[in-house]
Amino acid sequence: MERTLIADLSGLKGSPVTIKGWVSVRRDQGKMVFFDFRDRTGSVQGVVLPKSAAIETAKDIRVEYVVAIDGIVNERPEKNKNPKVQNGDIELEVTGITVLAKAEPLPFDMSESGLNLELSTELDHRALTLRHPRLQAIFKVQAMIIDSFRQFMKQEGFFEFQAPAIAPATAEGGAEVFEIKYFDKKAYLSQSPQLYKQIVMTAFERVFSVNKVFRAEPSATTRHITEIVSLDAEMGFIDSWKDVRDMSEKTVKYILSEISARCARELETLGAEMPIMIDSTPTLSLAEVQEKIFEKTGRDSRGDKDLNPEDERAICEIIKEETGSDFVYVYGYPTRQKPFYVYPNPEKPDFNEGMDLLCRGVEWLSGGRRINDYAQLMDHVEKWDMDPKKIEMFLEAFRYGAPPEGGFAFGAERMTMQILGLKNIREATMFPRDMHRIDGLLSQDESDA
Amino acid sequence: MERTLIADLSGLKGSPVTIKGWVSVRRDQGKMVFFDFRDRTGSVQGVVLPKSAAIETAKDIRVEYVVAIDGIVNERPEKNKNPKVQNGDIELEVTGITVLAKAEPLPFDMSESGLNLELSTELDHRALTLRHPRLQAIFKVQAMIIDSFRQFMKQEGFFEFQAPAIAPATAEGGAEVFEIKYFDKKAYLSQSPQLYKQIVMTAFERVFSVNKVFRAEPSATTRHITEIVSLDAEMGFIDSWKDVRDMSEKTVKYILSEISARCARELETLGAEMPIMIDSTPTLSLAEVQEKIFEKTGRDSRGDKDLNPEDERAICEIIKEETGSDFVYVYGYPTRQKPFYVYPNPEKPDFNEGMDLLCRGVEWLSGGRRINDYAQLMDHVEKWDMDPKKIEMFLEAFRYGAPPEGGFAFGAERMTMQILGLKNIREATMFPRDMHRIDGLLSQDESDA
Repeated sequence: MERTLIADLSGLKGSPVTIKGWVSVRRDQGKMVFFDFRDRTGSVQGVVLPKSAAIETAKDIRVEYVVAIDGIVNERPEKNKNPKVQNGDIELEVTGITVLAKAEPLPFDMSESGLNLELSTELDHRALTLRHPRLQAIFKVQAMIIDSFRQFMKQEGFFEFQAPAIAPATAEGGAEVFEIKYFDKKAYLSQSPQLYKQIVMTAFERVFSVNKVFRAEPSATTRHITEIVSLDAEMGFIDSWKDVRDMSEKTVKYILSEISARCARELETLGAEMPIMIDSTPTLSLAEVQEKIFEKTGRDSRGDKDLNPEDERAICEIIKEETGSDFVYVYGYPTRQKPFYVYPNPEKPDFNEGMDLLCRGVEWLSGGRRINDYAQLMDHVEKWDMDPKKIEMFLEAFRYGAPPEGGFAFGAERMTMQILGLKNIREATMFPRDMHRIDGLLSQDESDA
Repeated sequence: MERTLIADLSGLKGSPVTIKGWVSVRRDQGKMVFFDFRDRTGSVQGVVLPKSAAIETAKDIRVEYVVAIDGIVNERPEKNKNPKVQNGDIELEVTGITVLAKAEPLPFDMSESGLNLELSTELDHRALTLRHPRLQAIFKVQAMIIDSFRQFMKQEGFFEFQAPAIAPATAEGGAEVFEIKYFDKKAYLSQSPQLYKQIVMTAFERVFSVNKVFRAEPSATTRHITEIVSLDAEMGFIDSWKDVRDMSEKTVKYILSEISARCARELETLGAEMPIMIDSTPTLSLAEVQEKIFEKTGRDSRGDKDLNPEDERAICEIIKEETGSDFVYVYGYPTRQKPFYVYPNPEKPDFNEGMDLLCRGVEWLSGGRRINDYAQLMDHVEKWDMDPKKIEMFLEAFRYGAPPEGGFAFGAERMTMQILGLKNIREATMFPRDMHRIDGLLSQDESDA
């Protein structure tokens, strides 16, 4: 019989069906056997009655067996209905079981209420734990973040391009870059598509990319991984940096509304509380933030060149209390603290038109206006002591006419972690890489093999 | 005034508008100056009349200047209408010009009919040549290939995941893998998301990814680049390898129809002729292909373990002549010639259920059924002399119950090249990397710096 997806069962009461999927739960209750079956569309309870031709097979079936199940969709008696779960009003009366693949006994409890593993154990067994509803929910939300970013960008006329991962010797250099043995030469893993998205913007005007970036940060914190999915946008013909702020705000708002609308079950599974974005997100300069923190808490960070983690938490709490917004934009950082391409405020050139979006005490997104005037760019290249030869392709894009422009970027894993209130970015990364782990833990032995 | 996009001008005849964009062409005709302006939505002709307040500024404007243009949308006199080009029925009467950014004189002719550059020159100046209509058309078609793949996969219930780029020491090994200095250890750039998509399939059932893969092939041919966009799909609960063939066929059909429908202007710009996919693509075993080539051409490759390039061209020509199809599936390669995970034909275990889709003489896509039974997989691991420790995460996925499954993959650059009839894969790659080039040519000096 043609396969029916589990999500379609509730419309087929009284009908014979065949479903295919995994056994999530098996409960032997004397003469009857109950199962929870799952496929990519959800779960359903099945019962094998004593008279069923499948009763002998049912006794051999274990958790995670892959099965094809013939059965009848029965409405449950009123007292057994559970409106809180998918298919809580039906039950599949099993008439036949075909084992498509067996499973060995599991190394730990994978039931819905189970899976209280140390994170390192969860990661060691990612191939198995990915089947758990909690992990499935995390990665469905993440896919929705990426997908809704893409949808919104396309809707606003942005062109998707593929930014390269292999980079030549970088002008900005830095210790946090991975080196590749590139035939008899050296190359590097890209830390950001920044210069490429600016180049492509000069040809396609509005561009975005969803691409890997790499950071060789030798830190084993809850926030550091070495391979990240970066969501990047860049737009020409802006009037000021505020156009970039507005576009990034609309983007985040769209992503949040899509997750609320389309991942309700996942949010419930994870007990996640969506952050609140009010109509117009409060926007303060760095100096205003520092002044406000001083006023409200007495702590004086005025004149500091950046916000420290304590400042970030403080300003988010203050803004939340004052306006109800979980979000706040901070702009106007000291020009010389930031990369050469960030646009200096024409009226106060020591401060720039870069910005960060903070939420619940941490940074979600960065961006701002960039320099588009070639002479000004070359002036910065010189002041930042960079080798123009190493960014020749980037400079060429601006030598031949580039509009006033800006853009923004954020990490998919970080946004997933923060929306869902996860404690460790590895929970929000399907196959996390860090200084100690690539799938399994790295041992000195193996890596030298 | 609010900016109007060039694509919206034809609905605004008689109205004053402001457009923003680049100057593509400037033609000084005595007292009048003609321009072609372009933005992300297209091109329009503008004219600055002798009485215009902008006539003096117009004389200073050069190609690729970025401008804001005030003007009136005029219908062209009948004799000047050109139905073959966008906005061929209107002309913008320029009343004001604001220069947003200047451009230096171009290093070569960038006009629509121009750009007859050596490929190496085109690549050296990618930041500039990306603005040319021919290159824009190539990358719009490529974006459509990727986007329509994604649309179709989602429509068919496939879940998009992010496959990792950094890989641990690989079990398959091989010289064609890039080594990364990973802190004090070694890691590698992924050559394929194959094992990861199979893992994620065991959790999400139908999965796809659009990810970078890397090949350290020391070849400077027209077909080799080191960084590729790989489009991958994997599906569980198949009945046979034919389900995989059918899904890949529907995918390619959808991509081709989307390109035909939505990239008509780009196809015309490039003079590209879409390949023909008939209702049911001819599907032959390797042995049948060899037999047919022998019959038709007398050339005897019967018993060879794979098709060579000459065979690929021959079978495509024969199938085209016999059926009108530009496409042909070839399946049933010798089991031991292919990776350990490919499913052997149960009736003839020396041949497998792997397949390739050929078109116009070259391979477009590969795939097939994979082994899902754990015992059979372990048997192959042993016969293929692989270290199971190095693929422990992959093996775990199959140890705990995996359905009958298969999948397919193709490269975005290669499909772009072949649909558009480009001669070199670098033309279909925005920022191609090969053994001699990462953006600019690699010199020994720079790479050692």
